[in-house]
Amino acid sequence: VKLRIESLAIGDELLDGRVADKNTQDLGDALSALGLELQGARTVPDERPTIVAALHEASLRADIVVTSGGLGPTTDDITAECVAAAAGVELRFDEASFERIRAMFASRGIPMPESNRRQAMLPGSSRTLENQAGTAPGFVTPLGAGEVWSFPGVPREYRQLLEDHLLPRIRERLAGGAPQVLVRRTLRSLGLAESAVGERLHALTKENPDVRVQYRAAFPEILVRLIVEGVDRDACEARAEALLAVARAAVGDSVYGVGDDPLEVRVLRALEAKGQTLVTAESCTGGLVAKRLTDVAGSSAVVLGGIVSYANAVKEAFLGVTPAVLGAHGAVSEEVARTMAEGARAKMGATWAVAITGIAGPGGGSADKPVGLVWFAVAGPEGTTAVKKKLPDFGRERVREMAAAAALRLVLERATAGGAT
Amino acid sequence: VKLRIESLAIGDELLDGRVADKNTQDLGDALSALGLELQGARTVPDERPTIVAALHEASLRADIVVTSGGLGPTTDDITAECVAAAAGVELRFDEASFERIRAMFASRGIPMPESNRRQAMLPGSSRTLENQAGTAPGFVTPLGAGEVWSFPGVPREYRQLLEDHLLPRIRERLAGGAPQVLVRRTLRSLGLAESAVGERLHALTKENPDVRVQYRAAFPEILVRLIVEGVDRDACEARAEALLAVARAAVGDSVYGVGDDPLEVRVLRALEAKGQTLVTAESCTGGLVAKRLTDVAGSSAVVLGGIVSYANAVKEAFLGVTPAVLGAHGAVSEEVARTMAEGARAKMGATWAVAITGIAGPGGGSADKPVGLVWFAVAGPEGTTAVKKKLPDFGRERVREMAAAAALRLVLERATAGGAT
Repeated sequence: VKLRIESLAIGDELLDGRVADKNTQDLGDALSALGLELQGARTVPDERPTIVAALHEASLRADIVVTSGGLGPTTDDITAECVAAAAGVELRFDEASFERIRAMFASRGIPMPESNRRQAMLPGSSRTLENQAGTAPGFVTPLGAGEVWSFPGVPREYRQLLEDHLLPRIRERLAGGAPQVLVRRTLRSLGLAESAVGERLHALTKENPDVRVQYRAAFPEILVRLIVEGVDRDACEARAEALLAVARAAVGDSVYGVGDDPLEVRVLRALEAKGQTLVTAESCTGGLVAKRLTDVAGSSAVVLGGIVSYANAVKEAFLGVTPAVLGAHGAVSEEVARTMAEGARAKMGATWAVAITGIAGPGGGSADKPVGLVWFAVAGPEGTTAVKKKLPDFGRERVREMAAAAALRLVLERATAGGAT
Repeated sequence: VKLRIESLAIGDELLDGRVADKNTQDLGDALSALGLELQGARTVPDERPTIVAALHEASLRADIVVTSGGLGPTTDDITAECVAAAAGVELRFDEASFERIRAMFASRGIPMPESNRRQAMLPGSSRTLENQAGTAPGFVTPLGAGEVWSFPGVPREYRQLLEDHLLPRIRERLAGGAPQVLVRRTLRSLGLAESAVGERLHALTKENPDVRVQYRAAFPEILVRLIVEGVDRDACEARAEALLAVARAAVGDSVYGVGDDPLEVRVLRALEAKGQTLVTAESCTGGLVAKRLTDVAGSSAVVLGGIVSYANAVKEAFLGVTPAVLGAHGAVSEEVARTMAEGARAKMGATWAVAITGIAGPGGGSADKPVGLVWFAVAGPEGTTAVKKKLPDFGRERVREMAAAAALRLVLERATAGGAT
C-alpha cells in the first residue's frame, strides 16, 4: 500500500511572518518514521475560495490531506465550512463535541462564550476526532477518492490528534496491504558534520538498499535513524541490531549513544543512578550548560549549582584560580580549566564538576588562541581530565552550543567510564 | 500596485521531518513589513515533474514566485534545470558566478570539487543575483507574466539575497505605482497575552483602519508593529509617533520599550553606557538569565559572572543565605531572594545583581507555594528591591522563560530609574 499524503496549513499568521508552521515538519517526521513520505505541503491564507480550491487540488494528488488550523471559535476560522463546501455537504452540529467544550469551560469555572459553539459545527459527512488537548475537535471528511483530516493549528493539539487518530489509521492501512513490522534504531553522534556521517555510512546504505537511513541535524548533534521493515518482528529486530553495530563502528568515536534521550538527560540519568551530583564552572558558555541540565524536570536531584565566571575576579573569588596562574597561562588554558573544575567541585561539594573556558567570539581571538578554542576539564572522584578542542568558528551562538555539548559529553564519558586519565 | 507573491520551497528534507522551513516565514515577515502579503506557500520534494508543475501553477497565481533550495552542487539540486524547463529555455554557463565560486574555494585553500561547476549553470533567460553569503548564486527568470526568484535554502543565504535583491526590487515596483512612504514603529510588551494586548489596541485599530497593526509573539514577549503608509515622510513619521504614544498608553505597564532590541540587549546597553556591571544569582532559572545575557557578543563588558544555586548548600556557601533564613522562610521567599542578590553583588563586586528563586515545576509546588511562584530581587547602589510574581503554569520551560524575562526587565527598570524602593 503506497499512501500519498499532503499537508495543507491554513492561516494568515503563517504567511505574514507571525508564526512558523511546525506541524508540517512534525507530520513529515512521523510519516518518515513509518517509512512513508509526505509528498507535498501547502500554506494558504484564511480565504474561502483559496482554501476550497487548495482542498480540491490536493485531493486530486493525495489519498490523505491533513489540514492544520482554522478550527478556532472566531469568524476567521473557516476550515470546517471550507471542507464542507469542497465535499459538497452542509455543516452539522456535533452535540457530543459541544458538550465536551462546555464541560471544559465549566471545569475551569469560566462561562463559555457563545462563539465557541462554532467549534462544534462540522462537515455533515465527517467523523469527529476527539481532541484530548484542547477545545476544538478534529474531524475526517471523505473527499474525492480520499480523505481530509482536519486538525487544530496549535502544535500540541495537532500532535495529539496526529498520534491519537491519524497514525493508528495509517498503520492499520499499511498492515492491510501486507502484515508489516517496522523497527527503528537511532544513533547519536557529536563532532562530525552530516555529510561526514553520511560518507561513513555510504557502504551500509549501499549494501542495504531496503533499509531507510535518515539523518537529522539537531545542531551540533547528528542523529541517524535506521528503519528496518519486514514481516517478522524478531528478524527485523535482529537485523536492526546488527546494522546498528555496523553503523556504530563506521561512524566511530563521534557516536555517544543510541536511542531518543538527548545528551543532558543521559548525563542526569547516569549520575542519578549512582546517587552522584554535578556542578558547572562556565566561562565562554555563560550558563548554557547549567541551563541545558536544569531544563530537565527533576534535575535538582543531580545538579547542585554552577558558577558563571566571566570576569577573572569571579574565577579568583569562587574557583580559586590565582592571578599567578591567569598571568602565566591566560584564562583560556589547561591550568585554568583544571582549577575551575577542581575549585567548583570542592567548593560546592559535588561528585563531579565540569569546567569550560574558551573563546566564543566574535572578538577576543588571536593567532595563538583563535575563536573556537576551548579548554574543558572534568573533575571527579578519581582526578581531573582536561581536553582542548578547536571548534569551527560558525559564529558565537554555534560555538557556544558546540562547547556546551562537548562539555556534557565529557561528563558522560567520565561518569560512565569511572576512571581518570 | 498590488503585487501577488508566493513561496515555493524545494527539498525532500523539508517534507520528511529533517528540517523546518524558516525561509517562508522570513519572506512573509519581510513582505508584511512592506505592507504586502505573501499569498501562499508550497513545499515540494526534489522531483523534476513536481517542481516544474508547481512553478507553472504558482506563476499563474502570482507575479513573483520565490523558490528556496535546490541550488547546491549535488545531483539532487535541480532547481535551475526545473526553472529552465518551466520557462522553456536551456541552461547557460555563468562564467562570472563560476569565478566567484572558484575564488571562494581558493581563499580557503581548498581545491574546488568538479561538482561545484553545477552551481554556475543557470536558466538561459535568467539574470544572476550575486550571493554575498555563500557559493550558490541566485537568479531571477521571467515566467509567464511574472518572475521566478530562486534563492538558496540555507536561511542565512536566503535572507541575504532577499535583502540584497528582492526587497529593493519590490520597493522600486511599489514606488512605481505611487510614491510611497512606509514608517514602522515597534512596541515591546511583557506580561500580557497576545489577545489581551489586542483588546487594548482595539480602539486604535478601529479608528485607524489604514494603519497596519501586527502582532508577533516572541514568548513571553508580545511585539506590536504599527505600519503607517503615505506619500509624505514627515507626515507619516509624525503620525507613527503619535500612534505609538496612544498604543503605549493603551497597552500600559506591560510595555517595556520600543524598537528592535530585545530585553537582554537593552539591559547590557543601559549598563554599559554608565560603565556599570551585573551579576546573576539564579535558582529556578538555572543559568537561563546568564545565558541570555552572554548570548550577546561583547556582554563581558557588563556581565562579570553568575551563580546557579540549585542546592541550598550552594546558596549558603556562595551567597550567604543562612540555614536559619532558609528554615524560617523557605528557599522561595523574599528574604532568600534579597540575600541572594545582595550576596552575589558583594561577593562578585558588581554594580547590580539580580536574583531569582521560584518553583518552575512540574514538581515542587504546594498550595502555599504553587508552581509559577517566583521571587525576584535586584540589588544595586541604592539598595535592594524585591518583587513576587505568580506566573501562569504553562509548563517548566515557559515558566523559566517568563521568569528570566521578568528578571531582565526588573534590572532594566531599576538600572534606568536609578532609585531604590
